[in-house]
Amino acid sequence: MRSLGEMMHEQCKTLFPIYRSITGDGFRQSLAILGERWSELKIVEIPTGTKSFDWDVPKEYNIKDAYIIAPNGEKICDFEQSNLHVLGYATPVNKVVSLEELQAHLFSLPEQPNAIPYITSYYKERWGFCIKHEEREKLVEGNYRVVIDSELKDGHLTYGELIIKGRTDKEIFLSTYLCHPSMANNELSGPVVTSALADWILSLTEREYTYRIVFIPETIGSITYLSRNLEVMKKNIIAGFNITCIGDDRCYSYLPSRDGHTLSDRAVIHALTYIDPEFKRYTWLDRGSDERQYCAPGVDLPVATVMRSKYGEYPEYHTSLDDLNVVTASGLEGGFNAAKQAINIVENNVYLKVNVLGEPQLGKRGLYPNLSTKESGSTVRAMMNLISYCDGSKTLLDIAELIGEPFYKLENILKPLVEHGLISSSRHPII
Amino acid sequence: MRSLGEMMHEQCKTLFPIYRSITGDGFRQSLAILGERWSELKIVEIPTGTKSFDWDVPKEYNIKDAYIIAPNGEKICDFEQSNLHVLGYATPVNKVVSLEELQAHLFSLPEQPNAIPYITSYYKERWGFCIKHEEREKLVEGNYRVVIDSELKDGHLTYGELIIKGRTDKEIFLSTYLCHPSMANNELSGPVVTSALADWILSLTEREYTYRIVFIPETIGSITYLSRNLEVMKKNIIAGFNITCIGDDRCYSYLPSRDGHTLSDRAVIHALTYIDPEFKRYTWLDRGSDERQYCAPGVDLPVATVMRSKYGEYPEYHTSLDDLNVVTASGLEGGFNAAKQAINIVENNVYLKVNVLGEPQLGKRGLYPNLSTKESGSTVRAMMNLISYCDGSKTLLDIAELIGEPFYKLENILKPLVEHGLISSSRHPII
Amino acid sequence: MRSLGEMMHEQCKTLFPIYRSITGDGFRQSLAILGERWSELKIVEIPTGTKSFDWDVPKEYNIKDAYIIAPNGEKICDFEQSNLHVLGYATPVNKVVSLEELQAHLFSLPEQPNAIPYITSYYKERWGFCIKHEEREKLVEGNYRVVIDSELKDGHLTYGELIIKGRTDKEIFLSTYLCHPSMANNELSGPVVTSALADWILSLTEREYTYRIVFIPETIGSITYLSRNLEVMKKNIIAGFNITCIGDDRCYSYLPSRDGHTLSDRAVIHALTYIDPEFKRYTWLDRGSDERQYCAPGVDLPVATVMRSKYGEYPEYHTSLDDLNVVTASGLEGGFNAAKQAINIVENNVYLKVNVLGEPQLGKRGLYPNLSTKESGSTVRAMMNLISYCDGSKTLLDIAELIGEPFYKLENILKPLVEHGLISSSRHPII
Repeated sequence: MRSLGEMMHEQCKTLFPIYRSITGDGFRQSLAILGERWSELKIVEIPTGTKSFDWDVPKEYNIKDAYIIAPNGEKICDFEQSNLHVLGYATPVNKVVSLEELQAHLFSLPEQPNAIPYITSYYKERWGFCIKHEEREKLVEGNYRVVIDSELKDGHLTYGELIIKGRTDKEIFLSTYLCHPSMANNELSGPVVTSALADWILSLTEREYTYRIVFIPETIGSITYLSRNLEVMKKNIIAGFNITCIGDDRCYSYLPSRDGHTLSDRAVIHALTYIDPEFKRYTWLDRGSDERQYCAPGVDLPVATVMRSKYGEYPEYHTSLDDLNVVTASGLEGGFNAAKQAINIVENNVYLKVNVLGEPQLGKRGLYPNLSTKESGSTVRAMMNLISYCDGSKTLLDIAELIGEPFYKLENILKPLVEHGLISSSRHPII
Repeated sequence: MRSLGEMMHEQCKTLFPIYRSITGDGFRQSLAILGERWSELKIVEIPTGTKSFDWDVPKEYNIKDAYIIAPNGEKICDFEQSNLHVLGYATPVNKVVSLEELQAHLFSLPEQPNAIPYITSYYKERWGFCIKHEEREKLVEGNYRVVIDSELKDGHLTYGELIIKGRTDKEIFLSTYLCHPSMANNELSGPVVTSALADWILSLTEREYTYRIVFIPETIGSITYLSRNLEVMKKNIIAGFNITCIGDDRCYSYLPSRDGHTLSDRAVIHALTYIDPEFKRYTWLDRGSDERQYCAPGVDLPVATVMRSKYGEYPEYHTSLDDLNVVTASGLEGGFNAAKQAINIVENNVYLKVNVLGEPQLGKRGLYPNLSTKESGSTVRAMMNLISYCDGSKTLLDIAELIGEPFYKLENILKPLVEHGLISSSRHPII
Repeated sequence: MRSLGEMMHEQCKTLFPIYRSITGDGFRQSLAILGERWSELKIVEIPTGTKSFDWDVPKEYNIKDAYIIAPNGEKICDFEQSNLHVLGYATPVNKVVSLEELQAHLFSLPEQPNAIPYITSYYKERWGFCIKHEEREKLVEGNYRVVIDSELKDGHLTYGELIIKGRTDKEIFLSTYLCHPSMANNELSGPVVTSALADWILSLTEREYTYRIVFIPETIGSITYLSRNLEVMKKNIIAGFNITCIGDDRCYSYLPSRDGHTLSDRAVIHALTYIDPEFKRYTWLDRGSDERQYCAPGVDLPVATVMRSKYGEYPEYHTSLDDLNVVTASGLEGGFNAAKQAINIVENNVYLKVNVLGEPQLGKRGLYPNLSTKESGSTVRAMMNLISYCDGSKTLLDIAELIGEPFYKLENILKPLVEHGLISSSRHPII
């Protein structure tokens, strides 16, 4: 049987060739592939020009083909070969230009000569191609036919919204974006891991919280989504996570909410501490994704970001080198696991109170481990430390932080103590 | 004349041979020796089976003799030689067993072959002996007569309570335990130093606070005492200290209350900082004595622990090697002094307010030292720093911490300033 | 044209030879020179004996001449050569003394044999001379005529007060002292830089705050001034700076208010951080100037001190070596600039709120820099970081501290954002 990581990697492979942008059919097609397993997924189409806070929904972009015919008749910068070759939101063109004029429309990376860069021009209309620098240097004088068969017209911005009901209206929010063409860590890892998280959440027999999961285009998508849902989101969301760049195998990363001390921040930090104590901690000043909108003044949602290698921080970022070798099955599975643990902490973070004064007599309840091993000694110690802080004012996460034990270990230790009536739990402080 | 340390060491010597356990006549006898000097000492007997929070007062334990007759007729594990030889709370036995059966009832320390370990079995009835590992290895095949002439029956748990009245009902609490057989640092140092502290407190001509001093068996004793006195203790105790392992000469140690920032904690930290800046700071997670009960959720007394070498942290701990060589006269005196200073800080920690605006003119009051030496320069500096913080919202301890001067030095500097009416003091903030 | 630093140095040179003390004509003369440019300067005379908090205004001191005639007829310790030769507040004397008697009235520095020390005896009447140690060692046996033609009589303590009105009654307070004879860093740098600051404040076309600037004798002057103005100062002063030792070129220094976290403290720390990240941070325990009075309990004004080389911390301090070579034009200008920046931070520290939800669309307003350089990249980043914290609860200084950018840089970035209506500013939190 394939592992979850392998299945996620397989799904990345399926989605990889599709040409996605912040609007258009590639986005819709990708969303359909991800969403076919959930009847609950709502696909929302927002018309071009719709006012969204300080922005307007842009025109819808679609493209059929793009290429250049070199003086020798060779087809280069072929969209069929790599959809990164065309400048994002490039306007249509079909004409013959000199090398000199062409150069003004080419983008390449001298320091990464074998990489096609990923460049967009959403808010200024122009045409252009992205090319490996080593190829660009071989271009000779002569006439080049440039063809971009694209269309920029009034249409829609598309997003997907999956609401999974829990016991209460209070929500845990997951956001991922689906607007980049063929790149793997930034971006396919995000929607694929988020989809796996949705499957896991749907599989839970009990859910305290309602889950709001969105698949959107970055920036304009989160702005548009917020502008239509801000009130209910501000009222209900108790924690949220931005899921992006979560599929390679090199490190774990955390980027805080603007506040920096929300439950979401603490959950990510706690989860990563026990997965990889060397995880990278960025600051709000290093932000660059949808947390910019979710944590903007007046929006102020408690959204933290959990990643593997952060956008902008790995060499393949925003180039054709960010491919299915960068993202691995184990990288995806590790990322999934980190996000799952952070979510699980929020879902199960209850206030705890011990029901006896003084230390309880555990022996008479058979709550000491039978076998005395090094392992059991550590468990007893953790149990006594846990109990010693169950004063009704602290949550399981508070206590995990105080006693330096992983949340999941304390969850296991807590279970029999609650079953024996020694400890009470509640979603609110117990006075 | 003998020093206080020598007298305390002498008292350890008197108490050392007595067999003590959490109940029984050895506890009573030890308490009688310590308490003969105080008419105020109240001896309390709590019947077996009395419900104490989550626990029941156990049966009373007494023992007359215990030994093993080896196949060659030699008497080994002789209780008369060392009362550590018998397992604590061992049930009576008088029978002949094979070496193999005997081995299942022997306890020794392979890593400390010349030490008799201290082992108890309070809550599971069994018989057993503790033996030096080097002796155990010499045991030969054959028949062994094992004799334990003990008695476990309904009786009482005993404790001593000494209340010394002060100006107010607010209390400073001292707790020490007296339930271990022949061991010196853990435990005789505790009750002996506590007794000397009681003498010192009784000798004070003025006492702001009432002192509650208890001599109890560890764990079940503190639980029992708390279960009978919790209400008044929670109402009145403003600071408390657990006095244990306070007689060797190797280091000073502090173990915090659960809260970690109570006045008791600050008093111990401040006192030790000027006695030995290298003192060891443990955390609540290193706890292991009666603070477990005093600081339990719902009990929440401000009890910190001041020690020399902490239980569990020195090689002789809980073995026959923890003897009167480990505990020394200077070790006891140092421990006494540390606890006394911590108590003194609580007793004399007043709010201070300077009665003039701007710096006072000290010269006209003759408050500058006459002789200008390096010493006097430091005193003037400390005096000016002290005055500069006497704003009515800070106590002498607050100021000592702020200006980095020892409390006792500031007490001396303060006296003439108060006498000249320059500074007012109060037990409450002065607005 | 001369630089501001050169002009300030020139003024130091004018003031240098004047004999100043805590009272007397030298103080008046110096104040007249500084104040001739401001019609608003109020000169205040407080009679000897006036009660000022715990002190009395002392007698007024004036001196015409002082010298010693050595056995060989040579004039030494000549007041005309250096006014440091005479002990401050020395009583009149005119008699012949032996070398032995003379020695009891001489002050010199064995470790700085070529320096005349600066010594005063304000509160004990005596006569004395200060002399280079190398000269003192050459004195021979014989008769010495000692002459001090001074006068200590009922008179006045003089100070200058300059009130510059702003939009509100809330005040920024500047204090400097003018009571030392011929020394340059401690003290002329203080009044000269403060005067330049007054010129700059007067030149501002808009002032939010009213400025209270005082030129006083140290200690008794600040005590006297406070005792007459405490109520209005406590009501109105929102920030204050003690200006002293601000003219050499070796380092920058900060000494906190007693509170340590006032707006004044933050303003000095922020200003110095970007002028010289290696600036020296002293503590309240290192204090020694008028902050002792301004921050005394019950006075509690938010006064921090900004300096170049702190009093007591540079080798020339309180000797004839603290001359016009120690203080330089660039040193004065650097000090002026540091104090000006700190004042400017207080003057312009407004609460900020962005008026759109989510990130604003800056492109459509032309608020992105046209040219994309490394410089402009850093500016865009700072602009986005600034906007991200404009939540109405934070001031520009709060944000400058949070995002690690200098206040003055953010002031420039802020201007167009406010002009485009993207950001609102207020003197109070914007909810």
